[in-house]
Amino acid sequence: MTKSTPLYLDDLAVGDEFRSAEHHLDEAQTIAFAREFDPQPFHLDAAAAQHSFFQGLAASGWHTAAVTMKLLVASVPFGSGIIGAGGSIEWPRPTRPGDTLHVVSKITAITPSRSKPDRGLVTLDSETRNQRDDVCQHVVMRILVMRRPA
Amino acid sequence: MTKSTPLYLDDLAVGDEFRSAEHHLDEAQTIAFAREFDPQPFHLDAAAAQHSFFQGLAASGWHTAAVTMKLLVASVPFGSGIIGAGGSIEWPRPTRPGDTLHVVSKITAITPSRSKPDRGLVTLDSETRNQRDDVCQHVVMRILVMRRPA
Repeated sequence: MTKSTPLYLDDLAVGDEFRSAEHHLDEAQTIAFAREFDPQPFHLDAAAAQHSFFQGLAASGWHTAAVTMKLLVASVPFGSGIIGAGGSIEWPRPTRPGDTLHVVSKITAITPSRSKPDRGLVTLDSETRNQRDDVCQHVVMRILVMRRPA
Repeated sequence: MTKSTPLYLDDLAVGDEFRSAEHHLDEAQTIAFAREFDPQPFHLDAAAAQHSFFQGLAASGWHTAAVTMKLLVASVPFGSGIIGAGGSIEWPRPTRPGDTLHVVSKITAITPSRSKPDRGLVTLDSETRNQRDDVCQHVVMRILVMRRPA
């Protein structure tokens, strides 16, 4: 990402890439998030998690999603913000307490609005990777991006 | 939901529905979540939000997703837990501070695994609705569900 920020619709091109900073996810964070939003044994209790599908403590996928958003907000400098309309989300492998995550994003489509000439939808493909560069989450999101204000 | 719980793969049928309890989302919760995970002006500051796309404070979509998960964990009693493999997510309208959310879920497909006879994927279609029954989030998720342990 070498373009000047903030970026509006006309500044963007298919293929543009953005790389985030890192976020270290420790066990205190994953358990606190799981207690509030995803209180299942394999997110909360190491012994129970050992005998689960995950074979050890795993972060909630929604925690991975939330941390991904935090990293995107700081690394994808769209002038109108990151306003997601919807998309797909997959978790090819668990995020583990102790993982250090970063997000690599690429613009894969740009679709100007037909009815509203001041905006468009940008498809952003974001991989959330751990310290071994394994992909823990893959999100493809349609993001509303405005044209540069007059 | 009248079936006895916990439910395993053989207990489930396409068309089964689950309705969650309610969660009241106040402004303190939405701002706390946004500060940690989605620090954009339209999630944090009422005055800035007024002039944004959202025309007023909105909860982060990922906060809606996290609260939805909390409601699902308590209302969809799969014996092996709710382990999402992936799916789609859309936010047809913003969740607002002050909204009271509930989730209505329906099983739309059941696909036994070909390679692992002890499990299958269940497609769960979940609408997160506010107090006016407006849909704030629509998630279609493939969930790993085990057969009843021997």
